[in-house]
Amino acid sequence: MTQNDNKLDVLRQQIDVIDSELLSLINKRLQLVEQVGRVKHEVGLPIYVPSREASMIKKRRLEAEKLGVAPQLIEDILRRLMRESYQNEKTIGFKQVNPNAGHIVIVGGKGQFGELFRQMLSLSGYQVYIVDKNDWHLADVLFEGASLVLVTVPISLTCELILDKLGTLPEDCVLADLTSIKSAPMAAMLKAHKGPVVGFHPMFGPNVMTFAKQVMITCHGRMPEKYQWLLEQIKLWGTTLVESNVIKHDSAMATVQALRHFSTFVYGVTLFENKENLQKLLQFSSPIYRLELAMVGRLFAQDPELYMDIIFSQSENLSVIKSHSEHYLGNMEMLVQKDKHAFINKFNDVAQWFGELAQQFQQESNLVIQAAGDINTISN
Amino acid sequence: MTQNDNKLDVLRQQIDVIDSELLSLINKRLQLVEQVGRVKHEVGLPIYVPSREASMIKKRRLEAEKLGVAPQLIEDILRRLMRESYQNEKTIGFKQVNPNAGHIVIVGGKGQFGELFRQMLSLSGYQVYIVDKNDWHLADVLFEGASLVLVTVPISLTCELILDKLGTLPEDCVLADLTSIKSAPMAAMLKAHKGPVVGFHPMFGPNVMTFAKQVMITCHGRMPEKYQWLLEQIKLWGTTLVESNVIKHDSAMATVQALRHFSTFVYGVTLFENKENLQKLLQFSSPIYRLELAMVGRLFAQDPELYMDIIFSQSENLSVIKSHSEHYLGNMEMLVQKDKHAFINKFNDVAQWFGELAQQFQQESNLVIQAAGDINTISN
Repeated sequence: MTQNDNKLDVLRQQIDVIDSELLSLINKRLQLVEQVGRVKHEVGLPIYVPSREASMIKKRRLEAEKLGVAPQLIEDILRRLMRESYQNEKTIGFKQVNPNAGHIVIVGGKGQFGELFRQMLSLSGYQVYIVDKNDWHLADVLFEGASLVLVTVPISLTCELILDKLGTLPEDCVLADLTSIKSAPMAAMLKAHKGPVVGFHPMFGPNVMTFAKQVMITCHGRMPEKYQWLLEQIKLWGTTLVESNVIKHDSAMATVQALRHFSTFVYGVTLFENKENLQKLLQFSSPIYRLELAMVGRLFAQDPELYMDIIFSQSENLSVIKSHSEHYLGNMEMLVQKDKHAFINKFNDVAQWFGELAQQFQQESNLVIQAAGDINTISN
Repeated sequence: MTQNDNKLDVLRQQIDVIDSELLSLINKRLQLVEQVGRVKHEVGLPIYVPSREASMIKKRRLEAEKLGVAPQLIEDILRRLMRESYQNEKTIGFKQVNPNAGHIVIVGGKGQFGELFRQMLSLSGYQVYIVDKNDWHLADVLFEGASLVLVTVPISLTCELILDKLGTLPEDCVLADLTSIKSAPMAAMLKAHKGPVVGFHPMFGPNVMTFAKQVMITCHGRMPEKYQWLLEQIKLWGTTLVESNVIKHDSAMATVQALRHFSTFVYGVTLFENKENLQKLLQFSSPIYRLELAMVGRLFAQDPELYMDIIFSQSENLSVIKSHSEHYLGNMEMLVQKDKHAFINKFNDVAQWFGELAQQFQQESNLVIQAAGDINTISN
């Protein structure tokens, strides 16, 4: 035993030395990427270039394979390092695409999204002013000479606010919003303002660490040439802009957001009403079940208004949610009837419809679940 | 521009050199940990020791902080490296806790779980034989002198099979199962066999890369001293054994597994019946929504019988699923009535009930979602 203890000690000391070297290399890499960021900042190149990332990873995967190291390992580590560099990009700031732009006004700037966009736009060299609910006496002064007015207030207030308060913007000022539905706010913006209009919907929460790899939906309103600079600016942050018309967008959101959030909400309600013992459920949970439970619990750590806004935003949400409730009851009947055959048939129908995506989703989520397994010991 | 291009080239070459060094260090680390594994294998120490992992990470986090590197970065990378080492442990094998044990028979050994346990038990030095549905003519010969018979067949067959086929095991042979409910199979095992009985339920799928950090539920049946070696063996694989009685276990599983899987199943059915365009939904999805969709899609890449088995396993599942459907309809009424106030109130009730766990879940899942963001470009 003592001999083995000794062996273990020596090996562990060697691992310690390696880990220190690893840390110092990581530090050097972050500094080099920071320098790359500074050059890109000067030139105005986007911080996230998918093809460059892919080619770096491919190269290192091949090298790993030659060494007998799992390619997925080096890929995961490189991606983690790249994420850190995207996050650090904020310390450098971003090139200002339109240095001639006048100042920017964020209406609702004290909300979480308002604060996030204030930060990103300031980091990109723009002068940003905030108008929040108590600042309306300053609005006229602030709107004068503004190049962009960005609206980010609760959905229930958006249209009224646009129609009531934003009818007197300078003609060449860009009017934009971040509302999570697009039909009504776009119509309101186009009605209130004669100049350039564009609608955005960030497909992420206000607590993201970086805009890189995030998706923002863009609905064109009027005079796209006048807000092209803004689109270019957002792309420089590493964000993918996906164009959509308002109808398709709102219809997709009924499923992607409203149905999803409502189902998660009700799952939490069921746990609550049934007085489940969460600690006991967790004790029984491997990484995958822990993650499923965490995806429910995380909702309730957030602002109820945010979810209320999304779920109550449009009547189409209720149709989708209703159709889901009907499928729930319909399929529950298979359980009541103990009809295993029907279950298998329905399962196979859906599996066939998912097609190759099901396998792809499984592979992707396996990687995520493995990562969740690395993490979840924090709190165990 | 050319000057900046040049600068970028030089920096990228330097990053390339660092990445090669990084890979070589990682390779060295994996080899050192493999040597640790070999020593542990000789001595019979578990491969995953939470306290040791925690103390290594703490040390390195402090060092990172001093260097100005984000502690979470080095933690994530170290945890990823440790996971790789757990996975590699399979190449070394595991110390055999009970070298005097006779051979082991896995009934249903050609199923996915049967294959997984065959592999782990073989890697731990045991002689393992398989009895699958076409092998019953060999069963009597194989049972003779067996130290353990492990049953892993579909739930619907388990009890009948135990009662019909496993009544003549050697008296000191351990009889165990892996069924995802425990009341009925445990009763059947205790009835069929006079010797030691123990029930397990692995809280993970058959495609896990390592048993380290996974949870297995253990229900004691009879003569625990006779199967202590088996529990010790499983712990050596890095698995956490959680003891439970059969009633509490089955009740928790109605929520943790049956309700969860059924809800996910119905969500997939709704997407299918509503003929959603998955590619379009994906295009609109940032990492978090992509992950949510992937968690649904992954179900349909798997064996329908596995999920049917779990969902149809016991009548309590239907009660929980029914209660969920009632909460779904009840809360949907808030949407019909446009009662935002009621939504906020219910949300706050549930949030309060989750308590600090909600914040903890949010922090944990933020880490996972960030990791998902690293990964999902694979298929974009």
